[in-house]
Amino acid sequence: MASTREEGSDELRDVALLPEPPRGPLWAARARASFPWRELALFWEGNDTLRFKKTVFSALENDPLFAPGAAPSVEKYQEVTFLRCKRVFEYDFLPLEDALQRPERVMSLIQCLSAYDLSLAATFSLHLLTFGSMIYTSGSERHLKYIPEILSAEIFGCFALTELSHGSNTKAIRTTAHYDPATEEFIIHSPDFEAAKFWVGNMSKLATHAVVFAQLYTPADQGHGIHAFVVQIRDPKTLLPMPGVTVGDVGRKLGQNGLGNGFAMFHQVRIPRQDLLNRMGDVTPEGTYVANFKDVRQRFGQSLGSLSSGRVFIMAMTTVNLKLAVSIALRFSATRRQFGPAGGEEVPVLEYQMQQCRLLPYLAATWALDHFSRSLFLALQELQQGLLRNDWNRQAELGREIHALSSAGKSLASWTAQRGIQECREACGGHGYLAVNRLGSLRDDNDPNCTYEGDNNVLLQQTSNYLLGLWARRRQGGGRIESPLKTVDFLDACADTLGQRFAVCSPEDCLDSSVALAAYEWLVCYLLQESHQKFNQEKQSGNSDFEARNNCQVYYCRSLALAFLELAVVRRFHEFSHQPRVPPPLQAVLRRLSALYALWSLNQHTALLYRGGYFSGEQAGKMVESAILTLCAQLKDDSVALVDVIAPPDFILDSPIGRADGELYKNLWGAVLQGDKVLERASWWSEFVNKPVVGSLKSNL
Amino acid sequence: MASTREEGSDELRDVALLPEPPRGPLWAARARASFPWRELALFWEGNDTLRFKKTVFSALENDPLFAPGAAPSVEKYQEVTFLRCKRVFEYDFLPLEDALQRPERVMSLIQCLSAYDLSLAATFSLHLLTFGSMIYTSGSERHLKYIPEILSAEIFGCFALTELSHGSNTKAIRTTAHYDPATEEFIIHSPDFEAAKFWVGNMSKLATHAVVFAQLYTPADQGHGIHAFVVQIRDPKTLLPMPGVTVGDVGRKLGQNGLGNGFAMFHQVRIPRQDLLNRMGDVTPEGTYVANFKDVRQRFGQSLGSLSSGRVFIMAMTTVNLKLAVSIALRFSATRRQFGPAGGEEVPVLEYQMQQCRLLPYLAATWALDHFSRSLFLALQELQQGLLRNDWNRQAELGREIHALSSAGKSLASWTAQRGIQECREACGGHGYLAVNRLGSLRDDNDPNCTYEGDNNVLLQQTSNYLLGLWARRRQGGGRIESPLKTVDFLDACADTLGQRFAVCSPEDCLDSSVALAAYEWLVCYLLQESHQKFNQEKQSGNSDFEARNNCQVYYCRSLALAFLELAVVRRFHEFSHQPRVPPPLQAVLRRLSALYALWSLNQHTALLYRGGYFSGEQAGKMVESAILTLCAQLKDDSVALVDVIAPPDFILDSPIGRADGELYKNLWGAVLQGDKVLERASWWSEFVNKPVVGSLKSNL
Repeated sequence: MASTREEGSDELRDVALLPEPPRGPLWAARARASFPWRELALFWEGNDTLRFKKTVFSALENDPLFAPGAAPSVEKYQEVTFLRCKRVFEYDFLPLEDALQRPERVMSLIQCLSAYDLSLAATFSLHLLTFGSMIYTSGSERHLKYIPEILSAEIFGCFALTELSHGSNTKAIRTTAHYDPATEEFIIHSPDFEAAKFWVGNMSKLATHAVVFAQLYTPADQGHGIHAFVVQIRDPKTLLPMPGVTVGDVGRKLGQNGLGNGFAMFHQVRIPRQDLLNRMGDVTPEGTYVANFKDVRQRFGQSLGSLSSGRVFIMAMTTVNLKLAVSIALRFSATRRQFGPAGGEEVPVLEYQMQQCRLLPYLAATWALDHFSRSLFLALQELQQGLLRNDWNRQAELGREIHALSSAGKSLASWTAQRGIQECREACGGHGYLAVNRLGSLRDDNDPNCTYEGDNNVLLQQTSNYLLGLWARRRQGGGRIESPLKTVDFLDACADTLGQRFAVCSPEDCLDSSVALAAYEWLVCYLLQESHQKFNQEKQSGNSDFEARNNCQVYYCRSLALAFLELAVVRRFHEFSHQPRVPPPLQAVLRRLSALYALWSLNQHTALLYRGGYFSGEQAGKMVESAILTLCAQLKDDSVALVDVIAPPDFILDSPIGRADGELYKNLWGAVLQGDKVLERASWWSEFVNKPVVGSLKSNL
Repeated sequence: MASTREEGSDELRDVALLPEPPRGPLWAARARASFPWRELALFWEGNDTLRFKKTVFSALENDPLFAPGAAPSVEKYQEVTFLRCKRVFEYDFLPLEDALQRPERVMSLIQCLSAYDLSLAATFSLHLLTFGSMIYTSGSERHLKYIPEILSAEIFGCFALTELSHGSNTKAIRTTAHYDPATEEFIIHSPDFEAAKFWVGNMSKLATHAVVFAQLYTPADQGHGIHAFVVQIRDPKTLLPMPGVTVGDVGRKLGQNGLGNGFAMFHQVRIPRQDLLNRMGDVTPEGTYVANFKDVRQRFGQSLGSLSSGRVFIMAMTTVNLKLAVSIALRFSATRRQFGPAGGEEVPVLEYQMQQCRLLPYLAATWALDHFSRSLFLALQELQQGLLRNDWNRQAELGREIHALSSAGKSLASWTAQRGIQECREACGGHGYLAVNRLGSLRDDNDPNCTYEGDNNVLLQQTSNYLLGLWARRRQGGGRIESPLKTVDFLDACADTLGQRFAVCSPEDCLDSSVALAAYEWLVCYLLQESHQKFNQEKQSGNSDFEARNNCQVYYCRSLALAFLELAVVRRFHEFSHQPRVPPPLQAVLRRLSALYALWSLNQHTALLYRGGYFSGEQAGKMVESAILTLCAQLKDDSVALVDVIAPPDFILDSPIGRADGELYKNLWGAVLQGDKVLERASWWSEFVNKPVVGSLKSNL
């Protein structure tokens, strides 16, 4: 959040950057906003980010290659996505030196591309960020030759880890890399089709090179475990597969069909010894394995960091999806009228408490999660810079903390988006079910965020294990619980916290996020203690670690990880909205968003708050619900202006019912009439005229 | 649930009807089942239904027109759906006399078609059931001429109620029908595009006739409100639109694209006076409106009945979707192995508590909801037969009760299916995201069940209004609360019930659904009382009825309606699973399904159970959770056999990862390699070779 009030004071410049929304049916709703939307936009994004995003969005809008069209076939969609990706290279929105100086722009660029089309963002970032940084961080000087080829798209890359029969348990992958000292080559081989690399983004038709994970064997020894290799899979001159490589497309998916997910089988494919990415360990020309223990801590921090990096980008991308969906649904709800008081006009559906409570919590979630993913991105930058300064101990702690936050963070953000988009779809009724309004593709494109880079439920275990580990260390006399980002420091006061009780006397007192924050601290302490006890019980009853851990997930560790992450998100957004430098006209609306997200999230855990004794009596739960309803009612009149702050231009939002002018029906009707052969007679009309003879096939039964 | 134990005793016949599943990786899981699956299949469906379904499924499987293929374009999909629909007429699975004698076969046929493809089921049933029965029930003798044309598909029908700007508030539709005595015609007219009929299933390219709802005006009077008219929209000989009718396709939807949803505008379209469906009221040749008050109660019962009928069919169809999804996900989970104890083999993911608790409650929900929708269908039959016997009073009560049950029932069933299918998709990881495995199309096809025939949230108000009405009558001294199906009778003891407390001492005691049943009765009484008080408070604070009702929905009336329906489902399945005629080998498994569904549903309301004082202390909530985990563990080994009972043949299930042989990877790999151009080089390969010049367009920014 850049401090841009001063920069933003040039009013004329602001108007050029943030032009007035068009007049129309939404005007009345905008006029009711309690805050100046331009000031919030500048405070939220900062002048520099706003300008950068505007540059990217304008370039796409003015380029016919990015013009919207009818849903293409999967093949055409992959083609146009690649052409657009090339075009992004040609625009060079973010030259390397800019990216290094202002890493937050990398995030902004990916968010812009995601808002346009997640398939494009994925194609671009899997090549440049995933493949590129894998080679950079896991290789050594001898691999630097690939970097300019990557940056110029001379070669195109993919990241080949999972196999047909192994996703979550990547350690058990079965592709092999046997070293042959005679030729100084590795032989990459897939033992059978179940070990085919599968689901690899960019691999289907496009990638020329893959980082392939395989079990490494040298002649003298048993295996050395999984290592990564650069394997050329296609000839960049012809895009034909290299000898021994069978590579293809996994087929149509539920979404992201512009991204080509592929599979590959390797039949004794030979690659030079140098193409082992040798940061972890290397093989000498003679075939001796040499582990690289020298900088083990640096590697640890880096490997956690690069795993986290992918998840933080997913958090940002999934939050973009939610942002677009709530923008569409709220503009629709402010213009769609249905029913009304006896004898009166029909009222906008946003006036109904039910509609408010379906949508406004997701609007608040968008703000809270957006802020959280940005702050986590900044923490990642700190981690990378600290590693360069050789500050190992702190960096290892920071790496672990970021790993825990990004693991549960990706899960929380992707699920919140998935549920929120579905709610938006339903809240727009039938019109939400029309493809042209985009809620469907947002949902379908968002869906795999719950699965890739770690299945959500599996990832949550990373976070709960982190917390349980801290707890066990402390109980064994390991000193204070604290962490570089201070997200776990409150656990140090766990005993005190567990003695606290909800002490609020009226719903009005719940209208600040501090109330939910205190309740969340109690909740996480409670769940941590319960999970710890449950694990010990399981162990004492004779179960192995494997069994005991599995039997603690449902209702214990899973809830712990989610509640911890919700607390972290709530705390960050609470601090942000309560900092002194928030301009006074923006304070009320930001604090309401903070309180609404906090209470709405907390309310999912009310059963536990009662069960553990933090809540007692009928009033506690009622006050929370009453405060949620009050906050929704308060935010309702601000919601269209809040959408104006976060929604991209109409061209990018690409939804007739969500356009900024609010001309819901004109836009939708226009879009429907633009459809292909809308009014034309069915090409198969004569099949209708040629009547069925009822029962003529009955004898076949 | 037919009593078929005796019929089922002929073992040879059973084996022909229910052949042994193929040997393969699922065999071990099947061998662990605690019950004989064939006996359960016969008990659950009955011999007659099993035979009928087998006939339908076999006909489709043996007919090349129904062979699966690559995802077609929307246009091709509508064409093939129509051709299949024609073919269903040719098979004449259910001649009219059979349908009248065994109405449950109508339900079975629709379920079979839904399991194959919801678009086909919708196209077929919108014509025959919705359009056909609308003409039959809302018209009179002069409309009987249409019936043979409908039954032979000479004409094809659709039901045109909603407009571009009116969905839920159908009373406010703006299409007009002015009577012209000079020509004895009605003039059907759309005042503007916002009043275009919109979303009408079958209208886009296919229907020749529509039941059009319009505001009726006669020369002398103000309007007479909404009436229904038969309007010919296309020439059956050419499928070209009739003069004055603009009709077209609303465009691609998120799912059900084989069904053509259309729009229509009418430009002073003249239709004969006789085509007013005149059961409610008629217009004389001279233009006088004559209301038909004669049989107002019969009409009331019938109109509630026919509204309910659509919703009961949706309940059945949405439950089929969930059934298919859990079948796929459970077979996948029993064969997919990932991780395992240290040094041991990887274990099937179904062995993980987490996976069990994600999927088995939805398996239980499938059984409970399937049973409930069938029992509601039988009640509908009783309603229709009672109306023929002129038993008005009871029938009006029954009509109201069925209306309340089907309103919330459609909501509960469609949401349960929607969430369940999404959970199944995620539980199958990436492979669940592959279109060929069908979870995506199940989810997308199911989605509009939450919206059409009444938006779920709007429908829930029908149910809460029913309950609040009973409650208000009783408080005004209206005597006992009771209803023909006895779903509300427990409310009569509300005061006593509210004094009860959860009195269970161990998780084992929760393993029968009677515990959840008692808790639900308390919960519904509590929510009814709370909702009643909330409404009165709102009124006392000066709100109009409209405002007061709106402000009672969230946390009150909505929860009331859902909890009431869950109770009704739980009660019905509890009674079914505890009846004496359940064969002893099936008792344990059916009771576990009943208990799991009941507790899992109830557990969503634990916060209220604590808040209202039914639960107190830490143990109550823990015991419920512990019982859910126990039931999941108990049902885990039965789950593959339970799927064998409910899953359709592989051809219909149409999911490589869900096939009965359990050859997960072979089936999936085979399906992937069957894809179009899987291994072929991208047609756009030269675009790759033609490299981007990085930054060449930077000057355009």
